[in-house]
Amino acid sequence: VKKIKIGIVGATGLVGLELQRLLPQRLRPATYDLHLFASRARDGVHEFAASQLLVDDCDYLLNATEKDVAEKLRRGLKSNQVLIDNSSAFRMDPEVPLVVPEVNGDILQSAPQVVANPNCTAILLCVALNALKDFGPSRVVVATYQSASGAGIKGLEELDAGMKAAAEGRETPRGEVFKYPLALNVFSHNTSIRPEASMGAGYNDEEWKVVEESRKILGVHHLPISATCIRVPSRRSHAEAVTVDLKMDVPLEKLREAFAGARGVKVVDDWENNHFPMPLEAQDQDLVLVGRIRKDVTLGRTMHFFLAGDQIRKGAATNALQILEEILRQRAIA
Amino acid sequence: VKKIKIGIVGATGLVGLELQRLLPQRLRPATYDLHLFASRARDGVHEFAASQLLVDDCDYLLNATEKDVAEKLRRGLKSNQVLIDNSSAFRMDPEVPLVVPEVNGDILQSAPQVVANPNCTAILLCVALNALKDFGPSRVVVATYQSASGAGIKGLEELDAGMKAAAEGRETPRGEVFKYPLALNVFSHNTSIRPEASMGAGYNDEEWKVVEESRKILGVHHLPISATCIRVPSRRSHAEAVTVDLKMDVPLEKLREAFAGARGVKVVDDWENNHFPMPLEAQDQDLVLVGRIRKDVTLGRTMHFFLAGDQIRKGAATNALQILEEILRQRAIA
Repeated sequence: VKKIKIGIVGATGLVGLELQRLLPQRLRPATYDLHLFASRARDGVHEFAASQLLVDDCDYLLNATEKDVAEKLRRGLKSNQVLIDNSSAFRMDPEVPLVVPEVNGDILQSAPQVVANPNCTAILLCVALNALKDFGPSRVVVATYQSASGAGIKGLEELDAGMKAAAEGRETPRGEVFKYPLALNVFSHNTSIRPEASMGAGYNDEEWKVVEESRKILGVHHLPISATCIRVPSRRSHAEAVTVDLKMDVPLEKLREAFAGARGVKVVDDWENNHFPMPLEAQDQDLVLVGRIRKDVTLGRTMHFFLAGDQIRKGAATNALQILEEILRQRAIA
Repeated sequence: VKKIKIGIVGATGLVGLELQRLLPQRLRPATYDLHLFASRARDGVHEFAASQLLVDDCDYLLNATEKDVAEKLRRGLKSNQVLIDNSSAFRMDPEVPLVVPEVNGDILQSAPQVVANPNCTAILLCVALNALKDFGPSRVVVATYQSASGAGIKGLEELDAGMKAAAEGRETPRGEVFKYPLALNVFSHNTSIRPEASMGAGYNDEEWKVVEESRKILGVHHLPISATCIRVPSRRSHAEAVTVDLKMDVPLEKLREAFAGARGVKVVDDWENNHFPMPLEAQDQDLVLVGRIRKDVTLGRTMHFFLAGDQIRKGAATNALQILEEILRQRAIA
């Protein structure tokens, strides 16, 4: 059997490194060859701009860098190549499926050449919301607790430097990625606020991605949904407080069962021991932890839950690899 | 003029210490004598249990300890004494006014003998919601970002120990107040979850206080309101992401004006520079910072904002002192 050739573009970033770490757990290493690309060459990693022939030779390209690289990759795509793109370049392109396999993986049956991997916060949210689909979610309000690593290695380094400074009683050093100290603080997500004249005025770009992408993933294009995206001083894994209006009055036990039976969800909801989803327990695994499942006391058709999930794994690398696996399965390769 | 006598019970806790620090900024020191009480005697602080005569001699008692002490104080109250209680003992007692001076300070005209100081999260929320009262808030959803000091000195010490451990790459030492590490983590508020048979089932005690107390403070007893209360690794100042349904469609500019003109609120809402309310900027001052003011894109009568406020000052000590000032003003003493 001929080996498939997989290329990872952006191999030295957090998502790129995670893709390399997880790939052999998902595909038997004997079945593929791996090519790594980054903006600069280093041990085992090719310089992307100087490696066109090698890029062209890949059957499956996983992009873990920014939009401009994604656009370049798409333009150069050969008819036999598939691009799974983690950037935001094509997510809202009507021609490109935006896929969370647990939710809308069946779209992959159309054998698309380009597949977009959604925003990390939207992925975690949609995996959880998918559990409620039989109850007709009619409105979603989410407030997030997003970790430093959502802003990449530099974001993480800035938090670490701030933590060290705080522990030593020094002032937080000024950062490049974060405008304000993150250690011992929380602040509105560091993406830009959409200006007053634009669609989504006053939302930051992260919030707007959650709104638009969640609707596309869930296939409910007019779903009332809002997000407030906030950075907190955790290193890894995002958390989200979610309020959902349902079209019917669903007993608590049914809600719990729905989450317990949902693909990609692990219920962590121990009322007695106050044990609920936390970033420290959500990291380095692939499930979305869901807890604090409860009915609104003042509005019978409204419910609340709290989730935590590893945004580098399920929120990015794992989701991309699940898409790849699904495509290989349909092609009867894996 | 005879000096008034003020007693602070719980003088060695975070709120008690803050009361002592702020009192001379609010009342001319020449106008009052101060007596300090705590569970154990120390320099300048009397042992509460052994100081009945001195307690009886106070004109105004500020309680900054727990419910049991509050109940004891109320039982022993002389007809000329006033108790301003920061515990949760009497907050929902229909005989006792629950006061945020900016919102419902006029209740103090009835010259109550016992006044309850609300929960810190509810105070900050109500100061901000009060700005929207002309627009008919018909539903409120809040998710909180609460600091370690909300759990007192021990909570703060546990976070500090955890921060130090994290910076040195050691494991977080096990705490007494917090069941889980707070440094580099977020978790559901450490109060108990209300059991399935009770009113507010599945809410934790903090959330239930926000629901009940906000309704009483705002005087809207059937207001649909829900809270998700989460601890984050900040030292001081709580933050809250708030979604409000209004009875009318209010232009963004009107919303901004309403907050800018509201008592106790400072608008921090710089879209261009991504500068919004943050715990680090909210601490050590008395205003509730409000920003991220925006209209919901999917529901025209819904709006969102984000707030941060010092929960030990405006959320506790300052609010109690404002109540005291208002009572003194009405008695024409101050």
